[in-house]
Amino acid sequence: MLLPIILSGGAGTRLWPVSREAHPKPFMRIGGGKSLFAQTYERAMAIADQCAPLIVTNREYYFRSRDELAAQAVKPHYLLEPTGRNTAPAITVAALWAARQDDDACLLAMPADHLITDTEAFLKAAQHAELLARDGFIGLFGIRPTTPETGFGYIEMGDNVSQQAHAVRRFVEKPDAATAAAYLAQGNYVWNSGIFCFKASVIVAALAACNPALLEAARAVLDATRAEGDKTELGAAFSQLESISIDYAVMEKAQNIAVVPAEFGWSDMGAWDAVSDMIPADDHGNTSNTSSNGQPIFIDSRNTYVDSRDRLVAAIGLDNLLVIDTPDALLVADKSRSQEVRQVVSQLKASGHEAHKIHRTALRPWGTYTVLGEGPGFKIKRVLVKPGQALSLQMHHHRSEHWVIVSGTANITVDDSTVLMSQNQSTYIPIGAKHRLANPGITDLVLIEVQCGSYLGEDDIVRFSDAYGRV
Amino acid sequence: MLLPIILSGGAGTRLWPVSREAHPKPFMRIGGGKSLFAQTYERAMAIADQCAPLIVTNREYYFRSRDELAAQAVKPHYLLEPTGRNTAPAITVAALWAARQDDDACLLAMPADHLITDTEAFLKAAQHAELLARDGFIGLFGIRPTTPETGFGYIEMGDNVSQQAHAVRRFVEKPDAATAAAYLAQGNYVWNSGIFCFKASVIVAALAACNPALLEAARAVLDATRAEGDKTELGAAFSQLESISIDYAVMEKAQNIAVVPAEFGWSDMGAWDAVSDMIPADDHGNTSNTSSNGQPIFIDSRNTYVDSRDRLVAAIGLDNLLVIDTPDALLVADKSRSQEVRQVVSQLKASGHEAHKIHRTALRPWGTYTVLGEGPGFKIKRVLVKPGQALSLQMHHHRSEHWVIVSGTANITVDDSTVLMSQNQSTYIPIGAKHRLANPGITDLVLIEVQCGSYLGEDDIVRFSDAYGRV
Repeated sequence: MLLPIILSGGAGTRLWPVSREAHPKPFMRIGGGKSLFAQTYERAMAIADQCAPLIVTNREYYFRSRDELAAQAVKPHYLLEPTGRNTAPAITVAALWAARQDDDACLLAMPADHLITDTEAFLKAAQHAELLARDGFIGLFGIRPTTPETGFGYIEMGDNVSQQAHAVRRFVEKPDAATAAAYLAQGNYVWNSGIFCFKASVIVAALAACNPALLEAARAVLDATRAEGDKTELGAAFSQLESISIDYAVMEKAQNIAVVPAEFGWSDMGAWDAVSDMIPADDHGNTSNTSSNGQPIFIDSRNTYVDSRDRLVAAIGLDNLLVIDTPDALLVADKSRSQEVRQVVSQLKASGHEAHKIHRTALRPWGTYTVLGEGPGFKIKRVLVKPGQALSLQMHHHRSEHWVIVSGTANITVDDSTVLMSQNQSTYIPIGAKHRLANPGITDLVLIEVQCGSYLGEDDIVRFSDAYGRV
Repeated sequence: MLLPIILSGGAGTRLWPVSREAHPKPFMRIGGGKSLFAQTYERAMAIADQCAPLIVTNREYYFRSRDELAAQAVKPHYLLEPTGRNTAPAITVAALWAARQDDDACLLAMPADHLITDTEAFLKAAQHAELLARDGFIGLFGIRPTTPETGFGYIEMGDNVSQQAHAVRRFVEKPDAATAAAYLAQGNYVWNSGIFCFKASVIVAALAACNPALLEAARAVLDATRAEGDKTELGAAFSQLESISIDYAVMEKAQNIAVVPAEFGWSDMGAWDAVSDMIPADDHGNTSNTSSNGQPIFIDSRNTYVDSRDRLVAAIGLDNLLVIDTPDALLVADKSRSQEVRQVVSQLKASGHEAHKIHRTALRPWGTYTVLGEGPGFKIKRVLVKPGQALSLQMHHHRSEHWVIVSGTANITVDDSTVLMSQNQSTYIPIGAKHRLANPGITDLVLIEVQCGSYLGEDDIVRFSDAYGRV
């Protein structure tokens, strides 16, 4: 039996404007409606059977992650990082956490932001890797290359160490196009998938040999924390750990590494060209991911990818382009320049533009809100509260709020009185009034909030009590 | 003295998605913030001095046109068409209307959807044309070609008929590229601008000779109507007039035609490539027309035009593209395929999609409304009422409305009571209540309307009285 360790990080800046700091790549919905994170969890559960996977993620994504897994019978445990420190600290802490329960536990480390279309083949590869791990190897999943890809690291495979696995001759960095073509032709190179299988005791021993400082510092961080319910919040000292990948920290130094070459419809979804490649194309190579406004109108266009949720898109005479449309930002790019999308994010960060960080719809533990419009002295939001959830008991110094309920049922507290309201009813929250909004029902509560005031920033909030520990 | 006749029609389907049936090309704002219509009127006033121009337009655009000219001291008279019938019927009715006052009146027919950047040169050309008109000619403005344009009709010029003007040797249809290049090289070809100057009596005589049926039918239409205030509403019989251009109906047949070749920074703004050409480009040939979200981010892109009012746009590796962004529809096209935009409009019409017809913001005689969002059982609008204006006294069978005032002052009537409300106040209009919203103030009134009901179509309205004759 394998214990899955899901590494849920990765901003995915090359997938802007859909991916943003507050809505990173693991939560993107590609290919089938479920997020990459939720799909990864389902794969993990197919391997883990009834054992609860471990998720290592940023504390900012805790509530969001729980929401994504709301329908799952078996819940994971969360190791929450105060800041991301690359894969080595995450895997080290996870291995130490697992070793506490069982030093011989066999762990499968999986990034949460990859797409795998052939789950059966993945499970088969995992079985091979588990056998290797039980024999004391650190098993790596190597993907048999299908194209001379320059965006991945490669592994040169040596002799067989088992029927299914090979020794590692060397790791190689992202190659240029000619080198990549040579690797593809040679046949003994595979892509480094970033998916690993090992016994807790084995990776700890490898860390002790290759990077003892990191191991000891990580142990100290873990020793200083205690699980609360389904989560363990790693302390501020975690942010002092060396930010280094597990490849550099261990894999490229240790001797007991083996590769399991496999094919299971893997994509790292690193940039928009990779996303486009995973979607069935029409006769002209065009692909799209759209919803409410239907299919794009393609006129004499080829190999073009359109991603749009709300807007009608028409394309005329386009070739090999990306059109990525979101409510507040639009990207149009040559598909072969997909990697350069991160430059846009850098520019936005440098200029202080919020569009690198947040979407117009913000997620909260209790639901979501969407800014529908604003102007001098007012702001309009659509607020959705999930069944059984409640906002904090709060107060604003600079704004009053008008609420009109458009669906569901609300329990509304204003100062000392609480009333139950439903569709087509409205109320008013004066400046300075203590108030709380809760959904006591079993369907979503949706209301329109019109804020009036001289200052309408999100930080004008005084919280008195909160179900999510945000006071 | 010249009497300007402004022909304000032209759907501008090649300028979708900015231009739509309810927001046609003359009302587009390009180059300097004012609409093409308003810019045309200013040129007309520079010619007309204190004489009131005549505007021929669709009755649907009457209030909108008046709004555009609200700041003008001299107001025009409107001839309102029930449906557009091309230029010949419009010019014929206008000439007959002018001839009633003065048979010798000298008219200058100007399309409202052209851009002219050199007003001085235009006025000079108009003076030459007026001299010709006084001599009994129909004077045409011919634009000296600067490129081998295939999108315009050409005029081959013959001998001089005055120092500034030439006889017409022949009119030629839109040429192919080789022919256009030959015309450009020959030097005696000009573009047909669609701007004409003639005495009322002369065009009426030309019509009597070339197309007597149209003349008599148009006279009957005009005889059956009477001016009311600043407008003359042409009757339904107008829609029976032959739909034909003035070129076909008169110019290509009459003998007394003369061309005034001129250069005054003219563009017909026929398609997005022409729009892009009129905007100063950066070092890489990129142009843009943006507002609230600032300049687009261009990364290694060339000759690309971005038009976006609300959204941040990033472009990577683009060459010779158009990106035209509106709140509900987006066009991305190869600039050299600008003419094919009309195909998108045809497809939208065929599929019954509203995006060929209306924008998310709708104009009304009293102001505007914008749909901010909708869902099952609710719709949210931002409503703006101009100072001194009022909506009709109305009632809805299927919806109630919640109003929150976010700026300005409102006079709100519900059944028998009327109250004055201002910012941060709200009210409720139950289903079936007779109500009216008015702005008694001197600043815009802005309110957020949340509609609740099982049916939320615009046609659920019973009007009892209306200041704009819409009962």
